[in-house]
Amino acid sequence: MPFDPRSLAPNTPGYVVQNIERAESAIIDGLGKAGVATVHEAQGRIGLLSSHMRPIYAGALIAGSAVTISSPPGDNWMLHVAIEQLQEGDVLVLSPTSPCDDGYFGDLLATSAMARGCRGLIIDGGVRDTKDLQEMGFPVWSKAVCAQGTVKETLGSVNVPVVCAGALIEPGDVIVADDDGVCVVKRNRAAAVLTKAEERVANEEAKRQRLASGELGLDIYGMRERLAEKGLKYV
Amino acid sequence: MPFDPRSLAPNTPGYVVQNIERAESAIIDGLGKAGVATVHEAQGRIGLLSSHMRPIYAGALIAGSAVTISSPPGDNWMLHVAIEQLQEGDVLVLSPTSPCDDGYFGDLLATSAMARGCRGLIIDGGVRDTKDLQEMGFPVWSKAVCAQGTVKETLGSVNVPVVCAGALIEPGDVIVADDDGVCVVKRNRAAAVLTKAEERVANEEAKRQRLASGELGLDIYGMRERLAEKGLKYV
Amino acid sequence: MPFDPRSLAPNTPGYVVQNIERAESAIIDGLGKAGVATVHEAQGRIGLLSSHMRPIYAGALIAGSAVTISSPPGDNWMLHVAIEQLQEGDVLVLSPTSPCDDGYFGDLLATSAMARGCRGLIIDGGVRDTKDLQEMGFPVWSKAVCAQGTVKETLGSVNVPVVCAGALIEPGDVIVADDDGVCVVKRNRAAAVLTKAEERVANEEAKRQRLASGELGLDIYGMRERLAEKGLKYV
Amino acid sequence: MPFDPRSLAPNTPGYVVQNIERAESAIIDGLGKAGVATVHEAQGRIGLLSSHMRPIYAGALIAGSAVTISSPPGDNWMLHVAIEQLQEGDVLVLSPTSPCDDGYFGDLLATSAMARGCRGLIIDGGVRDTKDLQEMGFPVWSKAVCAQGTVKETLGSVNVPVVCAGALIEPGDVIVADDDGVCVVKRNRAAAVLTKAEERVANEEAKRQRLASGELGLDIYGMRERLAEKGLKYV
Amino acid sequence: MPFDPRSLAPNTPGYVVQNIERAESAIIDGLGKAGVATVHEAQGRIGLLSSHMRPIYAGALIAGSAVTISSPPGDNWMLHVAIEQLQEGDVLVLSPTSPCDDGYFGDLLATSAMARGCRGLIIDGGVRDTKDLQEMGFPVWSKAVCAQGTVKETLGSVNVPVVCAGALIEPGDVIVADDDGVCVVKRNRAAAVLTKAEERVANEEAKRQRLASGELGLDIYGMRERLAEKGLKYV
Amino acid sequence: MPFDPRSLAPNTPGYVVQNIERAESAIIDGLGKAGVATVHEAQGRIGLLSSHMRPIYAGALIAGSAVTISSPPGDNWMLHVAIEQLQEGDVLVLSPTSPCDDGYFGDLLATSAMARGCRGLIIDGGVRDTKDLQEMGFPVWSKAVCAQGTVKETLGSVNVPVVCAGALIEPGDVIVADDDGVCVVKRNRAAAVLTKAEERVANEEAKRQRLASGELGLDIYGMRERLAEKGLKYV
Repeated sequence: MPFDPRSLAPNTPGYVVQNIERAESAIIDGLGKAGVATVHEAQGRIGLLSSHMRPIYAGALIAGSAVTISSPPGDNWMLHVAIEQLQEGDVLVLSPTSPCDDGYFGDLLATSAMARGCRGLIIDGGVRDTKDLQEMGFPVWSKAVCAQGTVKETLGSVNVPVVCAGALIEPGDVIVADDDGVCVVKRNRAAAVLTKAEERVANEEAKRQRLASGELGLDIYGMRERLAEKGLKYV
Repeated sequence: MPFDPRSLAPNTPGYVVQNIERAESAIIDGLGKAGVATVHEAQGRIGLLSSHMRPIYAGALIAGSAVTISSPPGDNWMLHVAIEQLQEGDVLVLSPTSPCDDGYFGDLLATSAMARGCRGLIIDGGVRDTKDLQEMGFPVWSKAVCAQGTVKETLGSVNVPVVCAGALIEPGDVIVADDDGVCVVKRNRAAAVLTKAEERVANEEAKRQRLASGELGLDIYGMRERLAEKGLKYV
Repeated sequence: MPFDPRSLAPNTPGYVVQNIERAESAIIDGLGKAGVATVHEAQGRIGLLSSHMRPIYAGALIAGSAVTISSPPGDNWMLHVAIEQLQEGDVLVLSPTSPCDDGYFGDLLATSAMARGCRGLIIDGGVRDTKDLQEMGFPVWSKAVCAQGTVKETLGSVNVPVVCAGALIEPGDVIVADDDGVCVVKRNRAAAVLTKAEERVANEEAKRQRLASGELGLDIYGMRERLAEKGLKYV
Repeated sequence: MPFDPRSLAPNTPGYVVQNIERAESAIIDGLGKAGVATVHEAQGRIGLLSSHMRPIYAGALIAGSAVTISSPPGDNWMLHVAIEQLQEGDVLVLSPTSPCDDGYFGDLLATSAMARGCRGLIIDGGVRDTKDLQEMGFPVWSKAVCAQGTVKETLGSVNVPVVCAGALIEPGDVIVADDDGVCVVKRNRAAAVLTKAEERVANEEAKRQRLASGELGLDIYGMRERLAEKGLKYV
Repeated sequence: MPFDPRSLAPNTPGYVVQNIERAESAIIDGLGKAGVATVHEAQGRIGLLSSHMRPIYAGALIAGSAVTISSPPGDNWMLHVAIEQLQEGDVLVLSPTSPCDDGYFGDLLATSAMARGCRGLIIDGGVRDTKDLQEMGFPVWSKAVCAQGTVKETLGSVNVPVVCAGALIEPGDVIVADDDGVCVVKRNRAAAVLTKAEERVANEEAKRQRLASGELGLDIYGMRERLAEKGLKYV
Repeated sequence: MPFDPRSLAPNTPGYVVQNIERAESAIIDGLGKAGVATVHEAQGRIGLLSSHMRPIYAGALIAGSAVTISSPPGDNWMLHVAIEQLQEGDVLVLSPTSPCDDGYFGDLLATSAMARGCRGLIIDGGVRDTKDLQEMGFPVWSKAVCAQGTVKETLGSVNVPVVCAGALIEPGDVIVADDDGVCVVKRNRAAAVLTKAEERVANEEAKRQRLASGELGLDIYGMRERLAEKGLKYV
């Protein structure tokens, strides 16, 4: 029986979990196409990371399987360990064990991660070499941009559950990220969420056309009666 | 006698004021041309919203009449109500009744607002679908970008006075917004402020040429004597 | 003996130091070419300004000699005084004496500074007219963008040591700034730091190629043994 | 006809309004007795200042008539002007025209204000000499405690409308402040709000006894049916 | 087989889990006696909530079993639902589904919670009536103190896993809180953590005496050699 | 010639400077008696640390000679090194090399520091065991209270210049701290600043009596004429 990383408390230090399960790539790509806002709605408004997580450049859109990293403040040793665990289509997710804006990641690590098929980095900390990263097409969502370097002295973990920017992320969960932020979908819910997301997209397209023609949401959604019941006064 | 929304305390819930007065469109457009920094100076350095209000994309410049919205945290019901009140050239201004970064507004609401001639949104909260909004050319100045959705359960108000990002905004006031931020001009002062803003623009152009030629502000503004009186020591 | 501005306590008001020493321009330009992250590493991870200092537009990269300004909150009088002290290749560095986001600087001051060869502004406060500044090609790293103007009433100082965004900056120190942030290099260490930065750039290029080919940092840096000694468990 | 300060835009500089209307002292004292949370609920959940406004010491509870001050950042000149306008039972309310944490107020100004019957200070900025102020029994609600002094160079205003910590406050409005924060009640609504607040206090006392005896809010407020309708699942 | 709340994604709305397992009360009380800093060290420096969680009054120290609440912003309906689920020795833990400082909890809810044996509240939001709460001896650790009230309109959940102030908390986990902050211990690790915490307390007492007598940590912990190896220079 | 720590750039790692000069104890104690606000004014409004530095308990007042520490984020090794350098009457001053709220210091280190005559700690980071520290009478001014522990892996420095909370502090400078915050006085200016501080105290006492009797600052300071010149309108 493979080791179950979910049995570890979030951010437990000292472990590298090597065999993690991932969602099917067609599902992952489908979620990526739907985008963060739609996926977040489709799964019942859960799983969003804090809005302080911002892309280092506009326009990127990714989805992939989370390879998680728990790192001490100012120490990026575990990033090197994590890169060995990457597979094509993965996304690195780094959570410092206490708040830290240091630049854990730059163009050399990105070169290494891209060589292994990594699609991007989600980091509740800092990143540097942002101009190079944009030229390389390696997207990052981070709390800060900061040139401050890090040391390699203290163990953290790779592929244990982490709390990152206010969301629980377990290894192999699906990460979706775009200009609106970052959302996590539990691996075993990914197929169901995709179905709902696609329904939502179809449904929205019909509404968009009605709204574009000047019809009001008040009428499309039938809100007038309930507003009156609540006592809204037009004066 | 029409209902005077100014008789209501800011953010009083439960009202939709339907007939609001607006400034003349020529004045509004003139203020837009002058831009935020100039308008703010021209009216005596008042009316600026907090600097945490940032555009979702660079380069937009709008001016319009405020249609104000007071909304509970995490509840965007009143946005649907407000869209019905929009006229060509209006700007939506949303103030949550307590701090909230949720994404109150996205591409569907923008489609509806644009269908009624709305020029943009000022929101002391969050917005989502920012990539779509940029493609649609619908500018937003907000406190946050956030995919977190909202509910439609609790009444707020439309076209009552609101305090938004530190400024009092009354329905029909003129909003000017560009990369420097957002400024409000009282409706009944708009013409006077425009006159001063235009004087200021003309005056600045002359100074710009002198400064570009290498002349110093110390000399143009005659500051040397007063600096010496204050005791400035050159060493 | 020329007045030594380093004898003054940081932000001492009332002084303009006129003759400051600068580093050689070849050294300054070399540091600029290396960029902030490399320079910061090369000098032992010191001298970085706080990560709240962000460029008003992406892609700028400058290096220059600091002309420092200590200013009261909401008062930009000393900027006019400082511009007279600028030489070709200088960078303005403004530190308010208490936190303030007001827009101390806009397009007119930029016009004047550019006429004297100034390469940019570092300000732990606010700036305005950012669209104009970008069109003029005058880069600014600031804490805020804010249209709020300032007065000209109270003395500060020019070319005294200042603490700006968490770093001590003395007049004539070398400032390097790019998308990753802002770093200061002591004038008398600039040549030594450049040597180390250039070694670092060369060294990184070799590593980049190995990493791009799929070799792991774990192996290139020989980390596996030490990780095992620390007790890292692969499961 | 006396000058109506409400005709001025918030924070308009250069005015001292000398004759302001105040609420009756019995009403003011009644509101003080009810406390901030009750008053805020009683007037429909409006008028609360931002929660960053904290008391410098616990346990104080005041109510009084607002004497408002609009001050430039780092400039407390208008405080001296305002003290002359104080009457027995007034509360000073200071709003900087841009964010500033400087210590505008200390024990000397408190001595002067107390000599004129002032009950406390509400300041969206900084205060100093806090130990002395506590010993004197002069309560302050502020954004910051900061020893940084201020200058006296630039005009603001006294008794014009101000936006302070996110709330519109007009001269003569009733201020209530305690450990829960600060609330403003429009002068002409004060009597009506007091009536509702007193009803609320009576009503709460009955509920408190039922809850203390172990009865559940679910039953007292009859919530079970509506929760079931909304679909709450007990598992 | 009882429903396993751990099968739900954090903050899944719409559920009340009624039968949760708790740790033994002797273990809980032992952890409380050790205090937050010791417990946090004893379990390997994990489980600490963000340092923005502060007690509303100094000196309180509690430990108890978590009854968790996931609530929409500005909506405290689920608190009423949660109180029914309380047992003697429990601690309420509330996580808003998006950041919100509103005052979800005050003296009436505290009266009800105390009637059921609740030991305190951990809330990543706001609380009000703090003076009453202190007089009642009901401790709260919160992000904010805020008089702003809430509505009762939208479902959340009770006793599902929540991410609260950066930590994953599952129903029945042990919460320890004192002036240093708040820490969560997984229920099934509580006994083991207590053992380590008690060892730590004993060990610390011996060290305290040596340090008090003037012996240096450098010698007690044998640090001098390793510092020399790292290259520390005494000058 | 003793090593001059001032020749090192702020926060240069790897050094312990053993012989530092201190101000005379009578001067230090005099400055402590004057308090932070007075000392800060007396030296021309410079040297104040950021207002985010707050005491862990109210009422403490200290003055002493700075023993400075530069520490990596999440690493308190240098505190142990610094304690050996303490002399009777010293104050520890710790500046992390990048922002970090971790609890670098607790009751064991305080026991050790007190055994060597240390008067308190100034730390732009976190502290824990605050209840114990208060009982021991060991005051701390910090950015955060946080139970998160630290490691001992990476060198920093002791008694090099540091930038701490926005102020440059050199070893042996005089630190004054009370409820209003923390101020640094350059060692070689301490005597002069004391003289001015004492004049200021005497002067303030006279003013306090006049103000207490109801005389106005407007008259005592002769402000009326200048206000009129600036154009202040009484209406």
